[in-house]
Amino acid sequence: MSSSLGRLFRISTFGESHCAAVGVVVDGVPPRLELEPRDIQVQLDRRRPGQSQLSTERDEADQVEILSGVENGLTLGSPLGLLVRNKDQRPQDYGAMSQIPRPSHADLTYRQKYGIHAASGGGRSSARETIGRVAAGAIAEKFLARDYGIEIVAWVSSVGDVQADGVNFDSITRAQVDINEVRCPDQQAAARMKAQIIATRQAKDSVGGVLTCVCRHLPAGLGEPAFDRLEARLAQAMLSIPATKGFEIGSGFAGAAQRGSQHNDPYCFKAGRLATLTNNSGGVQGGISNGENLYFRVAFKPPATIGLAQQTVDYQGNAVTLEAKGRHDPCVVPRAVPIVESMAALVIADLALIQRMRQ
Amino acid sequence: MSSSLGRLFRISTFGESHCAAVGVVVDGVPPRLELEPRDIQVQLDRRRPGQSQLSTERDEADQVEILSGVENGLTLGSPLGLLVRNKDQRPQDYGAMSQIPRPSHADLTYRQKYGIHAASGGGRSSARETIGRVAAGAIAEKFLARDYGIEIVAWVSSVGDVQADGVNFDSITRAQVDINEVRCPDQQAAARMKAQIIATRQAKDSVGGVLTCVCRHLPAGLGEPAFDRLEARLAQAMLSIPATKGFEIGSGFAGAAQRGSQHNDPYCFKAGRLATLTNNSGGVQGGISNGENLYFRVAFKPPATIGLAQQTVDYQGNAVTLEAKGRHDPCVVPRAVPIVESMAALVIADLALIQRMRQ
Amino acid sequence: MSSSLGRLFRISTFGESHCAAVGVVVDGVPPRLELEPRDIQVQLDRRRPGQSQLSTERDEADQVEILSGVENGLTLGSPLGLLVRNKDQRPQDYGAMSQIPRPSHADLTYRQKYGIHAASGGGRSSARETIGRVAAGAIAEKFLARDYGIEIVAWVSSVGDVQADGVNFDSITRAQVDINEVRCPDQQAAARMKAQIIATRQAKDSVGGVLTCVCRHLPAGLGEPAFDRLEARLAQAMLSIPATKGFEIGSGFAGAAQRGSQHNDPYCFKAGRLATLTNNSGGVQGGISNGENLYFRVAFKPPATIGLAQQTVDYQGNAVTLEAKGRHDPCVVPRAVPIVESMAALVIADLALIQRMRQ
Amino acid sequence: MSSSLGRLFRISTFGESHCAAVGVVVDGVPPRLELEPRDIQVQLDRRRPGQSQLSTERDEADQVEILSGVENGLTLGSPLGLLVRNKDQRPQDYGAMSQIPRPSHADLTYRQKYGIHAASGGGRSSARETIGRVAAGAIAEKFLARDYGIEIVAWVSSVGDVQADGVNFDSITRAQVDINEVRCPDQQAAARMKAQIIATRQAKDSVGGVLTCVCRHLPAGLGEPAFDRLEARLAQAMLSIPATKGFEIGSGFAGAAQRGSQHNDPYCFKAGRLATLTNNSGGVQGGISNGENLYFRVAFKPPATIGLAQQTVDYQGNAVTLEAKGRHDPCVVPRAVPIVESMAALVIADLALIQRMRQ
Repeated sequence: MSSSLGRLFRISTFGESHCAAVGVVVDGVPPRLELEPRDIQVQLDRRRPGQSQLSTERDEADQVEILSGVENGLTLGSPLGLLVRNKDQRPQDYGAMSQIPRPSHADLTYRQKYGIHAASGGGRSSARETIGRVAAGAIAEKFLARDYGIEIVAWVSSVGDVQADGVNFDSITRAQVDINEVRCPDQQAAARMKAQIIATRQAKDSVGGVLTCVCRHLPAGLGEPAFDRLEARLAQAMLSIPATKGFEIGSGFAGAAQRGSQHNDPYCFKAGRLATLTNNSGGVQGGISNGENLYFRVAFKPPATIGLAQQTVDYQGNAVTLEAKGRHDPCVVPRAVPIVESMAALVIADLALIQRMRQ
Repeated sequence: MSSSLGRLFRISTFGESHCAAVGVVVDGVPPRLELEPRDIQVQLDRRRPGQSQLSTERDEADQVEILSGVENGLTLGSPLGLLVRNKDQRPQDYGAMSQIPRPSHADLTYRQKYGIHAASGGGRSSARETIGRVAAGAIAEKFLARDYGIEIVAWVSSVGDVQADGVNFDSITRAQVDINEVRCPDQQAAARMKAQIIATRQAKDSVGGVLTCVCRHLPAGLGEPAFDRLEARLAQAMLSIPATKGFEIGSGFAGAAQRGSQHNDPYCFKAGRLATLTNNSGGVQGGISNGENLYFRVAFKPPATIGLAQQTVDYQGNAVTLEAKGRHDPCVVPRAVPIVESMAALVIADLALIQRMRQ
Repeated sequence: MSSSLGRLFRISTFGESHCAAVGVVVDGVPPRLELEPRDIQVQLDRRRPGQSQLSTERDEADQVEILSGVENGLTLGSPLGLLVRNKDQRPQDYGAMSQIPRPSHADLTYRQKYGIHAASGGGRSSARETIGRVAAGAIAEKFLARDYGIEIVAWVSSVGDVQADGVNFDSITRAQVDINEVRCPDQQAAARMKAQIIATRQAKDSVGGVLTCVCRHLPAGLGEPAFDRLEARLAQAMLSIPATKGFEIGSGFAGAAQRGSQHNDPYCFKAGRLATLTNNSGGVQGGISNGENLYFRVAFKPPATIGLAQQTVDYQGNAVTLEAKGRHDPCVVPRAVPIVESMAALVIADLALIQRMRQ
Repeated sequence: MSSSLGRLFRISTFGESHCAAVGVVVDGVPPRLELEPRDIQVQLDRRRPGQSQLSTERDEADQVEILSGVENGLTLGSPLGLLVRNKDQRPQDYGAMSQIPRPSHADLTYRQKYGIHAASGGGRSSARETIGRVAAGAIAEKFLARDYGIEIVAWVSSVGDVQADGVNFDSITRAQVDINEVRCPDQQAAARMKAQIIATRQAKDSVGGVLTCVCRHLPAGLGEPAFDRLEARLAQAMLSIPATKGFEIGSGFAGAAQRGSQHNDPYCFKAGRLATLTNNSGGVQGGISNGENLYFRVAFKPPATIGLAQQTVDYQGNAVTLEAKGRHDPCVVPRAVPIVESMAALVIADLALIQRMRQ
């Protein structure tokens, strides 16, 4: 509880860091959707560890197996079971830490909640839990592309104190994002981000960052007042990703400092429909998509597990110095790109299916 | 769809701006809870319009009636029906605007979604929908106070470019918050905020702001990985409030610029339990409460309905100048205080009941 | 928990036997549906007490008020709040029984579950809770009639040992059902049923009965494998009605005694579609409607509250003789007709909206 | 949609008859529960095909693999992924039938609903979908036994026109049920049932039957008015099993012919609690368990796929004679025993966890 998300397009994930496999059941996938394992694998490959020197050394191929719900390359309308085996498990890495809760990690809270914890401490708070989300999100994206032409692109917009600049929300593509390991399309900023991540790793420290995501070509009308407003569902989805600390849509926190006369997006008539001249709203009004670009930002804290010595206490309250072992990312945002895209796709797919009840 | 929130402590709200009544059904309220109408009324009074010169002139007493679920001052365990009559309806105010979608308001998107709209345009996006939330939240708070000693206090931490300072998260009370009309406990900042709101109103403009909320004495263990993480559920709840654009917990977006060695909260042993020396995490680890203060911030955009002339187009795409009529708040954050508190209470009450399944 | 039913067409009921009001919030009602209070009132009138000498003497007009969600006779797509005031409350009738749990009534189990009970003992198990269902069901029926031409008709098919015969499932109407007070279209059987009910009342006893319900013109394709199969959702809905003990669809228990070669419904081509020559299946195959008449039966036990002396014990375990007071139906099935129809409409409306996700 | 069941103890199944694997995700399993694969396997073995001459010849070992959620023989509180590979797939068996919808089978309705169908026609309506349910149910049973001492035993109470007699609800065990292949503890009736099934198979026909199930030692207080009444949830669960046509609890349809004075269960004081002298109610009052034996019956129709020639039409409406191929059970009730037990366990486990919110 609760490993399920969505009302009609609904996923249920399973798996910890060091169990036999992680995966997901995806229910509500529209029938007759063309789907091959490679449609899913491409996003899993962007998420998987060990893909560059910026990420953890844990080596996982993360090959997906489709167990059900697809026949002859077409979905059947029944739930898809998707499976990824864990290969490079090393629960022994955690032995030394079993008596010390890692600061800002889930070790202690899992123990407080469940009265037991997995070998790796944080159990389901592991990034490996997100594999099921990414696999399911890739399916959602196929559906959204086929039926609506929706495009979803996320990128790294800051690492530490380095900010990206000049990204065109109307045209940015995943190819442009993937042009460097940081997944920041501003090449100059990306170089500085990369240097910062490498320096952080060398210092046995970690660093946070921010992702920006744009979703184009949403039809107007998605989002359910009052509690399933589009931005509410996105906020939940994004804050459900490990290590996230904030979400903002459109003008976000900066908008809170503005006046209505600045912030309002006046209407114009463009390409046969009512459009807005500006887009401080970020693509939603009253919780409902308005046909403009939907965009939002997600803040990720620096990873909690660091090799640097930390003065803390063990479970018995004794003062100890912790130098954490294990293979961990010095910065999660490059690998978080497909996760954020997938969560956005899952939310939009669900709300799109719900809106069909009115047609 | 979807006007329901929560899994065990579950609310279903109803009502638009200009219908006969607004209200809520609250299911899952623990039995044998002492409850009088005044327990609810106190928060409704803090939310109601017309309470100060900073808010809309719409005059509504917002008297709650408890229709069911309570007998002799005790809850029965059955759902509570709560009702507030709309008194000061003036749908006619909206007649002039019926041909022009207000910029950054829900007029157009409601029409796109439903193919019809209420007299007031935005229908359920009206702030009056939040009455049900506040009434239900007051009940949740009674339960949380009785069973856990939980205290929830929100306040205005910025209006436009004015920031509050020096609020003590450990001790701040609602009485201190209510000491001025702005609901900002930093009296000097409050004076400047008030001036800014009045100036904005006189300019027929509006202004945004930010709320901070702290929840004290949560037991450790609340929050359900993966999708019902405490911060995920809070983010959804807050972004479901009209006019919100952002949510951050603990260090939030600022934390994304930090290093792990700065951001991590080391453990110490205090008052018989493992506590943290700092609280950048904001009271959660891995989606689960850790017993520290839970705190978060919510960004509100400036209200969309302003009297200032706006160049826009009507539903047919003809260029028009709009000077919006009707009674509207120049700044929503003072009245949003009990709404944010209520949404927090509803989320925490639900997660607290869910955690009981493990006891 | 849990007073909500449905996924997209969703109701949340509230109210006990002796509180101020009972009612319901109906979410997911399609927008632009013509709806007047009289559309709802007609079914409430068929359900209300005191309508004939066969029912309880409790006198309730059960006038519905639509609080929200409708403007100018059209639904807005927002939730409808519906309210019925309790008028003829007599909690004092229950005083004498407050120390004795009525046999086969919910007095004891409510106390065991909640640690408290309402004046009337059974709280939400009261038949008055069904008012919200009937009001919501009437709305569902309007939608189903408009969009699909669906007709739903229930009738009393047995009372005690008297069975109705000769009802034509293709043509039976509510007018034919309402031709007598028993709501049994077989006039000869109805006369005997009426006599049995009156004799039972005179003997201060009660009697059970069975309802049959047919739903015509369902489109093929409704029902969601595996757990929201059409018959599974109907079974839940029917067994959620107070006093029900059984549900069967199509051939039901009798079908369990048959051979496949008898029971199977062979296909034929009729009126431009594949139809079946027989209908032992009752309109579903594999949990999905097949376009044939959907029909099912619901068993109601005799009401538990009887005036006849019963040897039982009080809450302390002392032997007592109970002669129950209060105003109660000697037989609930005549008044259950609109309840069964409403529950069927609610289930079908929900599944119809869900199926639209595939269009 | 919808392959999920339950609110707190929640399962999501996947898999068709001829895909790579079937399985289930089980969320909400209490932590620290002892669990080995053999705990699950024992029930899967009772369900699997090919276990006797009374069932289909399809040969499947149905070995379960626990993918997640368990470490060192203890549950972690995280979701369990359970997997069973399909081995003996023969989609080619269905080639000949691909143009002819089998009478009373789901071939046509799946096509109508999804616009596509699996090789085997009925897709998720296959009995193999129930593997996930049985695996999850075995876990629910372990929990219910540990925390409440609950025992659940189902048996075959009729096949065709043969009825079992003399089963003692207080003492019947699974060992007594499994004493013969029919799973009917009345040995004389079992012999006649077996003869009937074998004769039916030889005649290339099929036959229906009824299961009875008793659940002992439920605590009082389980079941949530109004829509999650214990009997309502059981009815949904049972009618979600393929081939079911009816459900009755306690006195069931027979009770509808009785008078209240016969049917009511008077209270007595026994073993330190209020008990009932009779149990026509079947263990529930007002939708809530009362501490007596919970018992109910489920009707199964004869399997639709028979070798006997049937006069029907193909998808184009042409008259054809169908002699169905494939490996199918002549009677499903012996293998349905663990399925019914599992569905009961899943419902009770969910309602037991929900009731903890009140403690």
